[in-house]
Amino acid sequence: MAGPSILVNGEPGETVSVLDRGFQYGDGIFETIRVADGRPDFWERHMARLASGCERLRLPAPDGDLLRCEAGQLCEASRAGVLKIVVTRGIGGRGYRLPEKADPTRVVALFAAPGYPESFVREGVRARFCRARLSDQPMLAGLKHLNRLDQVMARGEWSDETIQEGLMCDAANNMIEGTMTNVFIVRGGALHTPDLSRCGVLGIMRGIVLDLAQQLGIETEIRAIPRDEMKSAAEIFLTNSVIGIWPVRELEGRDYRLGDVTRKLIEVLARLATD
Amino acid sequence: MAGPSILVNGEPGETVSVLDRGFQYGDGIFETIRVADGRPDFWERHMARLASGCERLRLPAPDGDLLRCEAGQLCEASRAGVLKIVVTRGIGGRGYRLPEKADPTRVVALFAAPGYPESFVREGVRARFCRARLSDQPMLAGLKHLNRLDQVMARGEWSDETIQEGLMCDAANNMIEGTMTNVFIVRGGALHTPDLSRCGVLGIMRGIVLDLAQQLGIETEIRAIPRDEMKSAAEIFLTNSVIGIWPVRELEGRDYRLGDVTRKLIEVLARLATD
Repeated sequence: MAGPSILVNGEPGETVSVLDRGFQYGDGIFETIRVADGRPDFWERHMARLASGCERLRLPAPDGDLLRCEAGQLCEASRAGVLKIVVTRGIGGRGYRLPEKADPTRVVALFAAPGYPESFVREGVRARFCRARLSDQPMLAGLKHLNRLDQVMARGEWSDETIQEGLMCDAANNMIEGTMTNVFIVRGGALHTPDLSRCGVLGIMRGIVLDLAQQLGIETEIRAIPRDEMKSAAEIFLTNSVIGIWPVRELEGRDYRLGDVTRKLIEVLARLATD
Repeated sequence: MAGPSILVNGEPGETVSVLDRGFQYGDGIFETIRVADGRPDFWERHMARLASGCERLRLPAPDGDLLRCEAGQLCEASRAGVLKIVVTRGIGGRGYRLPEKADPTRVVALFAAPGYPESFVREGVRARFCRARLSDQPMLAGLKHLNRLDQVMARGEWSDETIQEGLMCDAANNMIEGTMTNVFIVRGGALHTPDLSRCGVLGIMRGIVLDLAQQLGIETEIRAIPRDEMKSAAEIFLTNSVIGIWPVRELEGRDYRLGDVTRKLIEVLARLATD
């Protein structure tokens, strides 16, 4: 497989300085965007999250038109791929101190599509719970930042190729998210997804699914979901920008059905994506 | 000021791949070592911590002799400097998944000494409390890992050049550490320092000070220290490998004296360092 096409601050390149604060401290944020037929999906939503993340980290946000141009340049020939945008605080500052005027580093990279089988959407996936807990940190909660050791450690817990995702809890045993996905459950026809005010990533697909549910008249609730409650969920599904929606057909050896709410959302999302 | 001298995987260089997991996820650890008269201080202690950090992150540890050789090469001509060693999981793995056989990236860099005035040791420094809390995460507690957004955000809270350090608490308002230092208080002649089992970095100088205290017959206690208790501390001091020991002469507008226990430890450490 060929490597990704990469632009570093607008120029073809493959490297960053070892002094970049992204490498030194994970001082930055990223977006992972599905590319279909030469276009990044849900571009505006990704750009809005990127801007809000930059603001929370007090990072100057990259120019939107410039990013769109660079992304377009990489994506135009791609039938299916994944675009990753990384923005860091660049080089500068003594120690942790923020530079007076940050000169951010901007990396835009197009990767081949991961090539997940279609059965993951049609029939569902197998999932497990991870022992690794998510850090409790309201200051960074919701952000797609570059401090991802929680996820790395959690993903290191299994190598069974038939298990597609590991779910992570907080220290209080509330179910929060998967290593690379958000989690939804269906109960009594309503859609429930964890509150992410203390940890977790506010996924773009999570937001889209919540919006679609509202449009379809499906009741939604964002709240603390104890891990034990997963056992009695009627339906479970996972979301992220690249996979869309994956029903969970098995979690920790327990079977779940691909129910009507999940099926309906997959259907509506597919229409949205091909519009 | 000239930039640092850097070896990347043993070769003079200044860059790493944007695909390096250090840049993508902060997936790695580091050491910051004081260099005096051509030699890195407390080398064995730093190497022991690096090895233990690699083990906890399931990273293959770099060869000790190789690191010593590379460090020696950079340091031999340095009268005073700071050596930083970064080890990441290198390139590889799809998403967060750990590569089957990691090929770590090893960065060894020599920086100029920060040039803090001697008065910081002799007379003490001014400190403040940060609003930013430390993430609660026992899985990573103690490690000097590359996920340092907590510290970056905390350090971004002040720009007053006369304040040298910001102290950070956990969510329960226990005092844990400074953005770049460990914290000690003296009460009734005994030395107390926070328990770091849920967050914080197990500093090399913290370990040295605890050992010195024991040798001097000073009672030591490692425990939860509520932030409010700082007000009634007889002495407060900060430690890290580069600064050694800095007494705190002012914290949040309250004055503290440079007491006997702090003075004694500074004295003994100075002898140790010049032995």
